[in-house]
Amino acid sequence: MVLKYYFDLMSQPSRALYIFLKLTKIPFESCPVALRKGKKVPFIHDDNFKLAESIAIARYLTRAYPVNDHWYPKDSQRQAKMDEFLEWQHLNLRAFCTLYFQIKWLQPMITGKQPTPEQLNKSEDDMVNTLNRFVEYFLKDGPFINGAAKISFSDILAACEIEQLRIASYEPREDRPILKNWIENVRNDCNPYYDEAHKLVNNLVDRAKKDVQAKL
Amino acid sequence: MVLKYYFDLMSQPSRALYIFLKLTKIPFESCPVALRKGKKVPFIHDDNFKLAESIAIARYLTRAYPVNDHWYPKDSQRQAKMDEFLEWQHLNLRAFCTLYFQIKWLQPMITGKQPTPEQLNKSEDDMVNTLNRFVEYFLKDGPFINGAAKISFSDILAACEIEQLRIASYEPREDRPILKNWIENVRNDCNPYYDEAHKLVNNLVDRAKKDVQAKL
Repeated sequence: MVLKYYFDLMSQPSRALYIFLKLTKIPFESCPVALRKGKKVPFIHDDNFKLAESIAIARYLTRAYPVNDHWYPKDSQRQAKMDEFLEWQHLNLRAFCTLYFQIKWLQPMITGKQPTPEQLNKSEDDMVNTLNRFVEYFLKDGPFINGAAKISFSDILAACEIEQLRIASYEPREDRPILKNWIENVRNDCNPYYDEAHKLVNNLVDRAKKDVQAKL
Repeated sequence: MVLKYYFDLMSQPSRALYIFLKLTKIPFESCPVALRKGKKVPFIHDDNFKLAESIAIARYLTRAYPVNDHWYPKDSQRQAKMDEFLEWQHLNLRAFCTLYFQIKWLQPMITGKQPTPEQLNKSEDDMVNTLNRFVEYFLKDGPFINGAAKISFSDILAACEIEQLRIASYEPREDRPILKNWIENVRNDCNPYYDEAHKLVNNLVDRAKKDVQAKL
């Protein structure tokens, strides 16, 4: 039975796994789930085997399906450095970018209430610091994360997280040439699936820009 | 050259890796680092190879050294379920237990300022919810995480995180018989190293109890 993939393209890790599945040509059945209904996405059903958590899923897929080594290297030390990023990002890139997106865009949209300037400033500081640390620690040595010559699952995961900021009218590429260059490398390697997975994000970014222009 | 292990036993993941290294009999040189000096712990130097992030380190050690399978199973699906827990815990057990510890104990100790009742209540709710979800999702099927018959690295990591709450005068075992039973299984399997690694924690718990009694 074909792998079932449950996802919502509004969710950053859902987009990352969607792009990964497409690029690695792993056959799967698309099972869209509305995130707003409170279901935790992404998850998979591989026959009777159920699994959540995007990083656990990506690692499992590289063992269960024929996937090129660069996506998640088998070499022990290179794999360990990839794991170091994947474990680091939870309480850094993921935590602070998501929090900024929620405080600045999602919560006002749901509740109609704006954050206080203190909340927004604190969240923006944390987000900016984590983006700068990401560039400094993980992007400084080459075209992809950890200076790798080829793209890995980590690159897709990080790029999808960072793209989410644009919905909240924050452009992560601005004044960050290394990050801009890297995210374009990721996009180019992942297209047409990168743009396909980000269609909803890009629509929301366009709408936010029009709202700002309408107010001018 | 022997593995160098940099750690501070005040740090939950530092204790987990210390216990893991002792139990798996991986030879290592102890390199204590004071967490309060701002160094991020734990990390290792294995000859010229440097690695941070406790989970990345544990995974690397199970490949680089002869370690019994139960610590991190090679079976693909069992490993995936272990990864599911290890990825889940960052933004759940780790995030909310650490935040509670920081708000209730660490920050008042450093700054002399108490949290507001709202901050403390919110943090306690999040922490209690995550403990209850941990029991419901991961402990319900057997003696160890995911219903495993034998202990894994996940069990040590989770137990060390949860023990930290006791410094902040919160007893996670109270009214949680499943959690109490599990944490005693972990402690029994890990002793004498579990108690050795928690000596500082237990001293701080005793001191907090005396402070409370002195106020009565």
